[in-house]
Amino acid sequence: MTVKPLKIGMLGAGTVGAGVYEILAGRINNPHRSIIVTKIAVRDTSKPREFNILSHTTITSDVNSILDDDEIELVVEVMGGVGVAKDFVIGALKRGKSVVTANKALIAENLTEIENLVHEMGGRVKFGFEAAVCGGIPIISVLQNCYNGDVINEIMGICNGTTNYMLGKMENGAEYSDVLAEAQSLGFAEADPTADVEGHDVRAKIAILARLAFGTTVPVESVPCTGITQISPIDFSYAKSMSCTIKLIGCARRLSQYGEYDGALSVYVTPMLVPNSHLLASASGAGNAVAVSSANLGITSYTGAGAGRFPTANSVVADICRVSSSLISSPFPRSSAIELDFDFISDFYIRISFQDSIGIIRRLGELAEKHEINISSVMQSKIHLTDCVVITEESKVDRVLAMCEDIAREDWVRCKPLCMPLLQDL
Amino acid sequence: MTVKPLKIGMLGAGTVGAGVYEILAGRINNPHRSIIVTKIAVRDTSKPREFNILSHTTITSDVNSILDDDEIELVVEVMGGVGVAKDFVIGALKRGKSVVTANKALIAENLTEIENLVHEMGGRVKFGFEAAVCGGIPIISVLQNCYNGDVINEIMGICNGTTNYMLGKMENGAEYSDVLAEAQSLGFAEADPTADVEGHDVRAKIAILARLAFGTTVPVESVPCTGITQISPIDFSYAKSMSCTIKLIGCARRLSQYGEYDGALSVYVTPMLVPNSHLLASASGAGNAVAVSSANLGITSYTGAGAGRFPTANSVVADICRVSSSLISSPFPRSSAIELDFDFISDFYIRISFQDSIGIIRRLGELAEKHEINISSVMQSKIHLTDCVVITEESKVDRVLAMCEDIAREDWVRCKPLCMPLLQDL
Repeated sequence: MTVKPLKIGMLGAGTVGAGVYEILAGRINNPHRSIIVTKIAVRDTSKPREFNILSHTTITSDVNSILDDDEIELVVEVMGGVGVAKDFVIGALKRGKSVVTANKALIAENLTEIENLVHEMGGRVKFGFEAAVCGGIPIISVLQNCYNGDVINEIMGICNGTTNYMLGKMENGAEYSDVLAEAQSLGFAEADPTADVEGHDVRAKIAILARLAFGTTVPVESVPCTGITQISPIDFSYAKSMSCTIKLIGCARRLSQYGEYDGALSVYVTPMLVPNSHLLASASGAGNAVAVSSANLGITSYTGAGAGRFPTANSVVADICRVSSSLISSPFPRSSAIELDFDFISDFYIRISFQDSIGIIRRLGELAEKHEINISSVMQSKIHLTDCVVITEESKVDRVLAMCEDIAREDWVRCKPLCMPLLQDL
Repeated sequence: MTVKPLKIGMLGAGTVGAGVYEILAGRINNPHRSIIVTKIAVRDTSKPREFNILSHTTITSDVNSILDDDEIELVVEVMGGVGVAKDFVIGALKRGKSVVTANKALIAENLTEIENLVHEMGGRVKFGFEAAVCGGIPIISVLQNCYNGDVINEIMGICNGTTNYMLGKMENGAEYSDVLAEAQSLGFAEADPTADVEGHDVRAKIAILARLAFGTTVPVESVPCTGITQISPIDFSYAKSMSCTIKLIGCARRLSQYGEYDGALSVYVTPMLVPNSHLLASASGAGNAVAVSSANLGITSYTGAGAGRFPTANSVVADICRVSSSLISSPFPRSSAIELDFDFISDFYIRISFQDSIGIIRRLGELAEKHEINISSVMQSKIHLTDCVVITEESKVDRVLAMCEDIAREDWVRCKPLCMPLLQDL
C-alpha cells in the first residue's frame, strides 16, 4: 500500500517558516505519509534564506501558483498579519486545501468565519492553528480533544512570554523602563511594544481559548484589558509580603450561580497577584502556562515555551502531521451562546502613591464605604513611605475602578492608583 | 447524512466504569456520532449499581455476548487486572473491535504485543489507553500527537497520587506510618499499599511513558525502583534547608554524549529532592505532574488529577470520542532500539543515622574516596544530632549505593543510609 506524499505549499519563510522547513527536512515521526514542501511563497525570491532549500522545493513570489496547484493538499500560512493572509487562507480552504496557520491575529478575528467555511466544505478540509496560541503548548488540540465529555468552568493563562520575562526581571528589582529596553535589545520585545505590554496579545489569545473552552465567540476589542506598564518593583515587594508574585493573566471564567458554573462568562486580561504556591507562579522567564478548571478533571495545567522559532514551528509540524493522518479535529467543538459579563468579581490589590498627609486611612475608608467595598487590609512598606496598599474583599471590578477614580481625585494622591485582582485558586 | 451511533460494550462497572457511563449519559461534545453503551459485562448481574442504567443498556455476565456482538464497534475495558482482561482486549481487537482501556498493568506488560496486533489489523481497529497513566492528564495523546517532529530527551513525572499526598503530609511533620494509616482510612491507599509506597505503580507508568517518548520497550521489572518507605520528616527539614521538597519521581532520560541526547536511556523510580521553584514541586495533594524535555519545545509540563472516578473516566470518554471520530493515533509513534542503562548519574542526598562517635566525617571521607565519589557538603540538623546528610557531586548511582552499603557496615551507623538523587533542572 503506497500512499502519495503530502505536498505542502508554504506562505512565508520567516522565523517560524524556516523552523517548520528545517523540522520537516529532518526525521518526522509520521508513519503513514511522507511530507514534502513543494513550494514556498515569499515576497522577495532573491533574498538569501537562512535554511537549506531542498531540490524538491520551489521558491516563488506568486501565492496563486500555490493556491491553484492541485497537487498541493495543504497550505501552511506563516506569513502573519491579517489582510492578505486572511484572503490566502480563505482562498486555500475554498479550493479544498487544508490549512495550518500560526497566525494568532487572524484566528482571533476570524475563527468563527473560518469555522463556518470549514464546516461548509464538509470533511474535505482540515484546519489547524495549534501554533497560534502559546507556541509550544498543545493547548488547542487539548481543548479540542480532551474535554469532550467535560464542562470547563475556567481557563486562565500566562500567554505572553515577553511580559512574563519582564515581570520576572522586575521581581528581582529592575524598573519597568530598564527591563523594557533590555527585552527590546534582546529581541524579545518589539520596537513598538504596545501589543505585548498593554496586554493586547494576551487579549487575542484568551479570546481564542475562550472560544474553544466555552464555544462562545468573544469580541476581542470588548475584553477589558490592563497591561503591565504601571507595575513597579514596589508591587513585587508588597506581593512578596503576601507570598505572591505578579503575572499578566488572561482569564475566561464562567460565573457560578447556586454552585453550578452556569452563569455569564467573564473574560479579562490583567496583571494579578498570584500565590507562589500556585502552578501559574512557576512559569518563569519567557514561559507560558495555561490552567483549566473543569467538572470532571478539576484543575489541569499545561506549561511550556510560548514563542520562539522551534516551539512554534513544532506546533505547526504537529498540525501538519495531524492533517496528514486526518487526526485533526474538524469542525470545532462546542457552539453555544453564553452571556458575556465583563464586570468580574475578585479581591483586589490597590496601590496608592501619596504625599504624606493626615487622615488618609479615614478618607480611604470613606471612599470604600461610598462604593460599598469592604477593605480586608491596609499595608505600608517600611521602605516606601509614600505608598500604601489596600486589599479589598470580593467586589465587582467596575465598582473598584470607580473607587480608584475617586481616590485619584484626592489632592494627597500623586497618580492614579494601580489596581490588580488577587488570583484565587481555581 | 445520518451516521449510525457508536455502540459500546463495557467490561466492568466499578468506580471508573460508573464514571464513564455517567459521563456518556450526559452531554457529550462529539458532533459526528452519538455514542451509546449497549451492553455492560459484570461478574454479578444482581449486584445493585450506583448509577442509573438506561433502557438501551443490557447488563450481562457473559463477556462473549459483547465480543461476538457485531453491532458493537468498541469495547471499553475498565475491569482491571491482567489475566482475563488481557484475553478480552486481545479477543476484541482480533474480532475487529476498537478498544479503550484504563488498565495500566495491562498496558505496562503488553503494550508492544497490543501494538503489533493493532498494526496487523491495519486501520480497522483503534486502541486508546489515555486513562492508563496519570488519569486526568492527557499525556498519552500529547506524546502520540505533539512531538512528531521533535526529539524527546527526558520525561519525568509524579505519577502516583497516593504517595504524593503522603509526602505532602510528611512535609508538614507527620510520620510515615501515621500518614499511611490516614491515607488508608481515606481510601487513598490500599490495605496492601506495596504497589504505591514501593514505587511499583510509578515504575509501570514510567515504562509506558518511556515507550511512547523513546519508542523503546522498557522491561518493567528491570527498572530500578525505590519507594517512599524510608523517608521521614527529618528529610523534609534537610530538604527545606536546601529550598527543596521531596517527591517520588519516575524518570526516563536519554543520556547525552558530546552535547547530543543520543546515549543510552536511563529509567528509574526514586524519591528525589526537588527545588521548590521547579514545576514538579507545584504538584500538591494527590495531583500528578509530568515534565517533558525535548529538542524543539524545551520543557513542557502537564499537571492534573492522577486518579479518581471522573478524571479517569473523562480520559476514557475522550478516547471513546477520538475512536468515534477516527481521531486516535494508530499505530503508535516511534519504534527504535535504544540501549538501556540503569546506572544513572546525579548528585545525591545521603542521610546517615549514627550513634555519636568520633571521626565520623573522616570515615565518610575515606569511604567516599574509596568509591571515587566527591562530597560537596555535609550537613547536620541542629535538632536531630544523630543524623547527618552528605550531598555528593555527580556520580553514578551504583557507585553511591555501594558506598552506602559500606557506610551501613560501620559500627557507629544505626541503619542503612537513605539515598536520594537531587533533581536537576531538565
